[in-house]
Amino acid sequence: MTTTDIHLRQFAEHAKRRVESMLDRVLPAASIHPARLHEAMRYCTLSGGKRIRPLLVYAAGQACNADDTPLDMAATAVELVHAYSLAHDDLPAMDDDDLRRGQATCHKAYGEAEAILAGDAILTLAFRVLSHNMAELISTDRCLRMIDLLSHAAGSRGMVGGQSIDLASVGKQLEIAELEDMHIHKTGALIKASVLLGALCADTNKDTLESLGHYAQFIGLAFQVQDDILDVTGSTEQIGKTAGADRSLNKPTYPALMGLSNAREHARLLHESALNCLTSLGQEADPLRWLSGYIVARTA
Amino acid sequence: MTTTDIHLRQFAEHAKRRVESMLDRVLPAASIHPARLHEAMRYCTLSGGKRIRPLLVYAAGQACNADDTPLDMAATAVELVHAYSLAHDDLPAMDDDDLRRGQATCHKAYGEAEAILAGDAILTLAFRVLSHNMAELISTDRCLRMIDLLSHAAGSRGMVGGQSIDLASVGKQLEIAELEDMHIHKTGALIKASVLLGALCADTNKDTLESLGHYAQFIGLAFQVQDDILDVTGSTEQIGKTAGADRSLNKPTYPALMGLSNAREHARLLHESALNCLTSLGQEADPLRWLSGYIVARTA
Repeated sequence: MTTTDIHLRQFAEHAKRRVESMLDRVLPAASIHPARLHEAMRYCTLSGGKRIRPLLVYAAGQACNADDTPLDMAATAVELVHAYSLAHDDLPAMDDDDLRRGQATCHKAYGEAEAILAGDAILTLAFRVLSHNMAELISTDRCLRMIDLLSHAAGSRGMVGGQSIDLASVGKQLEIAELEDMHIHKTGALIKASVLLGALCADTNKDTLESLGHYAQFIGLAFQVQDDILDVTGSTEQIGKTAGADRSLNKPTYPALMGLSNAREHARLLHESALNCLTSLGQEADPLRWLSGYIVARTA
Repeated sequence: MTTTDIHLRQFAEHAKRRVESMLDRVLPAASIHPARLHEAMRYCTLSGGKRIRPLLVYAAGQACNADDTPLDMAATAVELVHAYSLAHDDLPAMDDDDLRRGQATCHKAYGEAEAILAGDAILTLAFRVLSHNMAELISTDRCLRMIDLLSHAAGSRGMVGGQSIDLASVGKQLEIAELEDMHIHKTGALIKASVLLGALCADTNKDTLESLGHYAQFIGLAFQVQDDILDVTGSTEQIGKTAGADRSLNKPTYPALMGLSNAREHARLLHESALNCLTSLGQEADPLRWLSGYIVARTA
């Protein structure tokens, strides 16, 4: 392992610790009324996960010289949005999945009604995190810009729209362009928002924001290609959710559309394109470079 | 009808027209991709309703001399939160209701998955409305305060929490205090937020905000008492949702706990207390006074 590798691992562990501690702080304790709802919210959010979106927030923040405290809030907000989306996606009416992060999905543990409500409350909390006392950390106009950006990325023209497109495409023969359109909405929008929220925690100029936006688009797609590859090649134990679930639902995937080895090559090229977007940035962007590589090399 | 009556009716019609036109503007057209999701979002939101929360926003705004344009956004945001909550509350896993505002509930018309997603996207849109271009209308710190307030009122310690308490109390024998606790969360929090958001559209002083907050607490409870009364006395046609639904679900209600005539007296007293909170305000608060009376006199 090189010194850089060690630094990057330390960066990732540090960031993960920070966001998990902040998630724990902003989620009401399971003893607070209504207790069962708060317990379900904590169950959905604090049960592990790779925390890739928070890592992107901190990495983009580091690339732009942002302070850690506003980054904590931005990272927490995007992870809350991600956690709520998983709780809702797993519901019987949606993907009907029993396993998530190696444990029972929220509706399996708390029942469908509580899982719907927990998701709703987690999403709502994300916006509270970006508004409550945030003005002490960064300027109010940047707070508002972050809320605007996150609400767009999470909404009907972003993540939720992607889930709707996904549902409509089950069992359909999609073209590559349609598949990409789905993923740009479903996972790409929130990944892009994570990078931009991190950058907005500092006074980042327009050009850098634009480069980072392009970087995020490439890694967003790479992330999904790798997810599809893992659904084919990974075991349930390894990926922490039901392996082969996409196939068994007859969902369109990259390996199904272009074959496994082409899908791998596609992921590699997306990673290269992502790196090309960072050429104007120095060492401070190394965590972003490393995360792009991690996304296409991960096995879970 | 007195001149005041005519003015108040004109106020209500004017406010309703404004919020409905703004809802239509902020909701993506049903032709925009993903079309079915946008269609479902519009179906949930534009299919009528009393628009009581928006009316409260405009009425509180008028009491504080706010401009109409920020009030449009605040009214739209609270109505979006209300509309999403109805779409989710009606789901089979929750209240399992088929009728809403005299037509099929969202999941009956679009299926469960799309109803969950439409709700999620409508909630997300509420926060976009309060952040996107809002800074052109009022100061950024007041925008943030509004988002903070709405996200608190709509979240696990407000509206969603109330729905969770409600679910847990089906079939249970509740005390009056527990019933009120449920309603303070379930409907009271958003009603209070509506009044305060209206007031925050102007530079309202702390004392007035406090009085308006108390006013809102009284009418919030009055609203729920009257809702329970209508569930007993109204017909399905009249109230636009299944009459007797609370009883048949064995839900605790005010008439069940204190008898119908005591429930009516309770509503009347809450209305009186609400009016008492407005004594320091002049004619400009007449719409608020009138709305309090309307809430306990309404038949739908």
